Amino acid sequence: MAKENFVEQIADIQKDFPQWYTDVVLKTKLVDYGPVKGTMVIRPYGYAIWENIQREMDARFKANGIENAYFPLLIPMSFFTKEAEHVEGFAPEVAVVTHAGGEELSEPLAIRPTSETIIGNMYSKWLQSYRDLPILINQWANVMRWEKTTRPFLRTSEFLWQEGHTAHSSEEEAKDMTLKMLEVYKEFAENCLAMPVITGRKTEKEKFAGAVATYGMEAMMKDGKSLQSGTTHFLGQNFAKAFDIKYLDKDGVQKYAYTTSFGVSTRLIGGLIMTHGDERGLILPPKVAPVQVVIIPIAAKKGGVVEKCEEIKTKLESKGLRVKFDNSDNSPGWKFNEWEMNGVPLRLELGPRDIEEGKAVIFRRDTLEKGSYALEDIENTVVNLLNTVQKDMLEAARARRDSRIVKAENLDELLKGVDEGNFVKAGWCGCRACEDEVKAKTAATARVLDNEVSKTCVVCGKKAEHTVIFARAY
Amino acid sequence: MAKENFVEQIADIQKDFPQWYTDVVLKTKLVDYGPVKGTMVIRPYGYAIWENIQREMDARFKANGIENAYFPLLIPMSFFTKEAEHVEGFAPEVAVVTHAGGEELSEPLAIRPTSETIIGNMYSKWLQSYRDLPILINQWANVMRWEKTTRPFLRTSEFLWQEGHTAHSSEEEAKDMTLKMLEVYKEFAENCLAMPVITGRKTEKEKFAGAVATYGMEAMMKDGKSLQSGTTHFLGQNFAKAFDIKYLDKDGVQKYAYTTSFGVSTRLIGGLIMTHGDERGLILPPKVAPVQVVIIPIAAKKGGVVEKCEEIKTKLESKGLRVKFDNSDNSPGWKFNEWEMNGVPLRLELGPRDIEEGKAVIFRRDTLEKGSYALEDIENTVVNLLNTVQKDMLEAARARRDSRIVKAENLDELLKGVDEGNFVKAGWCGCRACEDEVKAKTAATARVLDNEVSKTCVVCGKKAEHTVIFARAY
Repeated sequence: MAKENFVEQIADIQKDFPQWYTDVVLKTKLVDYGPVKGTMVIRPYGYAIWENIQREMDARFKANGIENAYFPLLIPMSFFTKEAEHVEGFAPEVAVVTHAGGEELSEPLAIRPTSETIIGNMYSKWLQSYRDLPILINQWANVMRWEKTTRPFLRTSEFLWQEGHTAHSSEEEAKDMTLKMLEVYKEFAENCLAMPVITGRKTEKEKFAGAVATYGMEAMMKDGKSLQSGTTHFLGQNFAKAFDIKYLDKDGVQKYAYTTSFGVSTRLIGGLIMTHGDERGLILPPKVAPVQVVIIPIAAKKGGVVEKCEEIKTKLESKGLRVKFDNSDNSPGWKFNEWEMNGVPLRLELGPRDIEEGKAVIFRRDTLEKGSYALEDIENTVVNLLNTVQKDMLEAARARRDSRIVKAENLDELLKGVDEGNFVKAGWCGCRACEDEVKAKTAATARVLDNEVSKTCVVCGKKAEHTVIFARAY
Repeated sequence: MAKENFVEQIADIQKDFPQWYTDVVLKTKLVDYGPVKGTMVIRPYGYAIWENIQREMDARFKANGIENAYFPLLIPMSFFTKEAEHVEGFAPEVAVVTHAGGEELSEPLAIRPTSETIIGNMYSKWLQSYRDLPILINQWANVMRWEKTTRPFLRTSEFLWQEGHTAHSSEEEAKDMTLKMLEVYKEFAENCLAMPVITGRKTEKEKFAGAVATYGMEAMMKDGKSLQSGTTHFLGQNFAKAFDIKYLDKDGVQKYAYTTSFGVSTRLIGGLIMTHGDERGLILPPKVAPVQVVIIPIAAKKGGVVEKCEEIKTKLESKGLRVKFDNSDNSPGWKFNEWEMNGVPLRLELGPRDIEEGKAVIFRRDTLEKGSYALEDIENTVVNLLNTVQKDMLEAARARRDSRIVKAENLDELLKGVDEGNFVKAGWCGCRACEDEVKAKTAATARVLDNEVSKTCVVCGKKAEHTVIFARAY
């Protein structure tokens, strides 16, 4: 019955995954389309997930000595031209302010698609001596990239993100930072979003415009496609030279700094939806769920039920849990469907008989299992259950992902692999032509380089320089 | 000696208040100028204050049932023209995107100067039934108003703020919300920023473009000028009619909602600087200070000093305090100056003799008083001292402000009053001509309407309809 209801509301996840995604994000009020094409409104239920992501991520930044700051939205167009690869990469996507205050501007201004240039300009001003290094700054901000094809959370003309920007005295220290932040992202994705990721270096083709090396984390969505969920960039001295980020070293010599940048965005919300969701709708990992437990009264008009529900709510909240007591006029069945669609990890049902028996029924959204639990010490029971859900969601996602990584020795196998919704590991000679050929023939792209050793290139059959994880990607 | 040092670094607060302000915000690294004229970079030390403001304010919003969301940055220009007063007020300040993705846009897009229009457009889509009301949403965002004269935090082309937007079924409920949020702002300003404010209704001339009524809170800066520090607006049905925000009421009739909006911005940081600062620099109220206590070792190389400082730091942090242990190579005197300029509320000095005696010296930045305190239970001593500082700072600011509110019976008295750096209370007939005359003759403007009853208008001598607080304003 619950299932039938949802068939009316959201598309079948097995038959039409893209439509399922669109239905789910709109019906659960995570997001809505903005009036300008390609923009999104993040509604309170969606924004609450983002707030939880921010809080968790921000604590990790601060633990790594990174401080927050805020840099201007508008960047002089001339800044982009200072780093050749950077302008080539971003110029086509930039939104441009030409008029302000009723007048035409003497120089057009870009709305930041990313802030390496304007931050580089400021670091050049701030950095004087080796004593000023490292500079470890992050900003939480909106950015804009004018995209032709857009989808809520996954690709929109404006999105919210964090962008970390650091400057260091040595190449080694900057490289270490790049890899350390990749590890921070991975740990966050796995432990908070229950989203297993594969991390690794990107190919030259897929790297950030202006970077020496880009590292990414890739997550497998339920349709087998990959979502690039976060990237860290070792920028070498590219931006330091373009923006004159230099300092007087101990030895009395002026030197260019080495810089890095790294970012994750509201795209992560799309990632967790497509990692965990099912035919009933969302399944949210407890650590970032806006509501972790919904309490639903059965026969709410019977004496004592509402009071007991409120008492339990208070107990759970005393443990720092995010709890909703749904005492609306709707039927329990309607509420079950609604909160299942909304992906709330645990549902606690309480009726007169439960109270008599000193028990409550708890339903797990991830496994759809119901159990009966003593009301005594219910708050610790729920805390433990939430921890179990969090852990099990990661394990389930990891098992699913791991069962869908296959190997390919040639292009036909690679095509078959991605057609069947897998990540495909294959050898690659390292040349751009072969990488392009894979994309042309299979619509898969090189996600990250793997540590495994392969013998031959999946395209040309020559000696393999790398093993690549290929997948179709969002 | 400390004082002399600062004479070199920052202008004399008595002689040149504007230069003192500029020197302080730049030297303490709160802020820097961005590359585009009129923009600012909020540096980590300044942004940490904003984070503390956000955390405190956000908790108050949530306690009032307000949820956060995020609406797009870009607003179709046509939206502005839907509310006649609104377009007149904001069109001259708007920054306009005309090109994006390499093409000219079919309709130019404004960077939001405020979001009533785009949020109205979405509410019209979301609101169906009386059951959907009230809608209580806030967003933390950047906004842009192209200003000719700019100063960091006080007036910049881009700034950070929160904007609350609510919709209600009745006029009374919307009016109550407008006044309730004004109270929330006042309580926050006084208890967190230690900044006493006068709240009240704005005149028609000074109200928000598109509002029925605007309420503001005004704080007196140390130069006697007023800083509008937050506003709340009762919008009546103006935006509801312009954007078709209506719902089916219980009685089966389609009705327009009543809406409100309210905002505070990074301007608050300017406010607290100019409320509390002195000739040595910043004085930050403990509740929003990035560093609440700085620990400075005396004779740090003597055995046990560093260890004891670290032990105290850990103890203080266990109370949730924000603590800096400055163990750099600089001399204690240099550190004293630096952290005084940075406005850290308490300085704890610890040397070998203090350790022997089981005591520490604590210096209060607000009163410049030093005292000796037992190391035993030092964490609670510091917590209590911080509470005292917070309270005393508000009281001192309030006493200063209250001593500088005078009354005027005519324009000469009003001019004399504001020339001497006062807020001036005066009767007003209510006509725009007299309000304009005050500004022309005294450069003061009507800040808010007061509850007091006056007999005659300070300009024309006719019967007074209102008592007004006049002041020169930022």
